[in-house]
Amino acid sequence: MEKIKVAINGYGNLGRAVELAVSRAEDMELVAIFTRRDPADLDTVSGLAVSASEMAKWVGNIDVCVNCGGSATDLRNQTPETATLFNVVDTFDTHAAIPQHFAVVDQVARENDTLALISTGWDPGLFSLNRLLGESVLPEGETYTFWGPGLSQGHSDALRRIDGVAAAVQYTIPNEDALDRIHAGEQLELTTRDKHRRECWVVLEDGADSEAIREQIVTMPNYFAEYDTTVNFIGREEFERDHTGMPHGGTVIRQGQTSDGVSQVLSFKLALDSNPEFTGSVACASARAVARMAANGARGAITLFDVPPAKLSPVDPAELRKRLL
Amino acid sequence: MEKIKVAINGYGNLGRAVELAVSRAEDMELVAIFTRRDPADLDTVSGLAVSASEMAKWVGNIDVCVNCGGSATDLRNQTPETATLFNVVDTFDTHAAIPQHFAVVDQVARENDTLALISTGWDPGLFSLNRLLGESVLPEGETYTFWGPGLSQGHSDALRRIDGVAAAVQYTIPNEDALDRIHAGEQLELTTRDKHRRECWVVLEDGADSEAIREQIVTMPNYFAEYDTTVNFIGREEFERDHTGMPHGGTVIRQGQTSDGVSQVLSFKLALDSNPEFTGSVACASARAVARMAANGARGAITLFDVPPAKLSPVDPAELRKRLL
Repeated sequence: MEKIKVAINGYGNLGRAVELAVSRAEDMELVAIFTRRDPADLDTVSGLAVSASEMAKWVGNIDVCVNCGGSATDLRNQTPETATLFNVVDTFDTHAAIPQHFAVVDQVARENDTLALISTGWDPGLFSLNRLLGESVLPEGETYTFWGPGLSQGHSDALRRIDGVAAAVQYTIPNEDALDRIHAGEQLELTTRDKHRRECWVVLEDGADSEAIREQIVTMPNYFAEYDTTVNFIGREEFERDHTGMPHGGTVIRQGQTSDGVSQVLSFKLALDSNPEFTGSVACASARAVARMAANGARGAITLFDVPPAKLSPVDPAELRKRLL
Repeated sequence: MEKIKVAINGYGNLGRAVELAVSRAEDMELVAIFTRRDPADLDTVSGLAVSASEMAKWVGNIDVCVNCGGSATDLRNQTPETATLFNVVDTFDTHAAIPQHFAVVDQVARENDTLALISTGWDPGLFSLNRLLGESVLPEGETYTFWGPGLSQGHSDALRRIDGVAAAVQYTIPNEDALDRIHAGEQLELTTRDKHRRECWVVLEDGADSEAIREQIVTMPNYFAEYDTTVNFIGREEFERDHTGMPHGGTVIRQGQTSDGVSQVLSFKLALDSNPEFTGSVACASARAVARMAANGARGAITLFDVPPAKLSPVDPAELRKRLL
C-alpha cells in the first residue's frame, strides 16, 4: 500500500515531535518541512526543509500537512491558508476561540475541496474526547478536569518576563486529595485555588532581590494571585539538571449517576514525560485519519469528535477487532 | 426533532438498565420490549412488553433494537435474527468469538439493508476504545488491562454450583501495587496470579463442611487455582446487606515511549456501582449513534471503533466543540 505523504509546517518543539512520530510510523512518509526561515539554516533530522514560499508547488504531492505553529499567532492564519492547498491538521488550543477558528477553516476547506482537522492533541484532543464520552454515557453528572503535574509554558513565560529572572519554570500541581475524593464518588464544588497549586523554580540574575521577585510572582493577577503559589530560588546548575524537560499530564473525571444513589465514575489520565512529543504523536495519528477520511470524500473542518477511532490506527480493522475489542 | 424509536429485546438486568437509560434520554423514546416469556407476566417499568413472536410487525416503527440477551447462548442468534428486521445494538462479550459474530452479523445486515453495532459496553466497549487510542498514539509500548474491584458473574456462578453453597459472590481485585508501578512508567511482566486476586463471600447450607468447600474452591481449575483466592464464610443476613450489588470496573493502561527514555502513560479507569446500569447506558448511547449513522446510509456490522464519538451524544456538534473541546 502506498504510504501517506506528510508535510510539516513550522519546525519548533512540535514540528520536531511530529517529524519523530512520522519517522516511526511505517505507513507514513515525511516529504517536506515548510519553514519561514532560510531552509539552509534549519537543522532538521530528516533534512527535508523547504521554504514556506514554495508550498503551492507541492500540491498533489502531499496527502496531509501538519501545522505546527503556535496558537496565539500562527495557526489562526496558517490553517486557513494551508487548507487552500492541502488537507491539514492543527493543534489550535485557545479553547475560547475554537468555534471561530472552526468556522473560518470549515469555509476555506469546503471552498478548496480539502479536509482540515483542528485542535487535536491532548487538551484539546484526547481530554475533550473523554469529556464527550463521559457525558454521552453518563448524561447526569459532573465533569472535572485537572492538569498536571506538569510544566505550564504560559506561566513559565510569565516568570521569565520579570526583571531579575535569568531562567524559570512553573509546574502546575493538581490537588491529589480532591482527585481521590472525586474518584471515590464525592461531589465537590471546587474553586480555582482548590483545584491546582503552582510551583515556581527560578534562577535569579546577579544582584536581583529575591523577596521582591517572590512578591511580584505570587501577586501577579490571572497567573498566580488566584492560586497557592510557592517560589523556589535555585542555581543555574540545578536548573539545567532538573528543570529542562517538558513533562505534563492531567486527569478528566466524569462522575455520574445512572439511578438514585448509583454512582459511576470514569476517568482518563495522562502522565507525560514530554508534552510536545506526546502532542506530536497524537497529531501524527490524526494526520493518518485525515488522509484516509479525505480519500473517502470527507471535506471541510472536523475535530477528533468526528473521527471513527479505527481511522487513527495503521492496523487493519479486522485485526483491531480481533486483538483489541 | 423526532425522537429515536428504541426497542429492547430481552428483559433481564441489562434490559431493565437500557429501559432506565432510554427513559432518561430526551431524544429517545422506548416503543417496545420484546420478550420470549408471556408479555402479561413481564413486570416492566414502562409497561411496553410485547411477545417476541410479534417482532416482524414492528418493522418501520423502530429505529434501533437493543438486544439484551446473554452472550453465551442468546446473542449469537438474536443479533443476526433481529438484524434482518431492524438496526441493532448488542453487548456480545465473548472476546474470542467476536470476529466470527461480526462476520455473520455483517453479512445479514448488508443483505437486509440494516446497521448493526456489536460488542458495545465497557469491555468490550470503552476499554477496547482506550486500548485502540493508546496503541494509535503510542505505537511503541505495552497495554495492560486490569479488572475490578468488582463482582464477576461467571465466578460467582461457579461458586453457587458447589454442593453445600447456599449463596455466594466473587470479587476480582486488581493488584494495586502493580497498577501504581505501571502508572509510574515501570514495565512489568505479570502472570495471571500477579495481576488479580479473587475474594469469595459464601453462605453455607446447614451442615455443610466449610473446610472441604474452601479446598474445593481454591483448587478449582480455570476459575480459582491460578489465583490467590480467599474464601470468607458469612451469614445470610450479612450477605443480603453487603453483597447484593453488582459493582465492577477496572483500568486500561497504555505505557509507551515516544523516544528513548521518554515515557508516556495513558490510563482509563472505571469505578462502577452497577455494572448492568453502566453497560445499559453505553448501549443506549450506542443505539443513538446507530440510529443516526443508519439514517446517513451506513450498513452492515460496526463496532465502537467505527463510530465518530459525536454521534454518541444528543448535543449539537457546534455546542460540543464550544463546551467540551
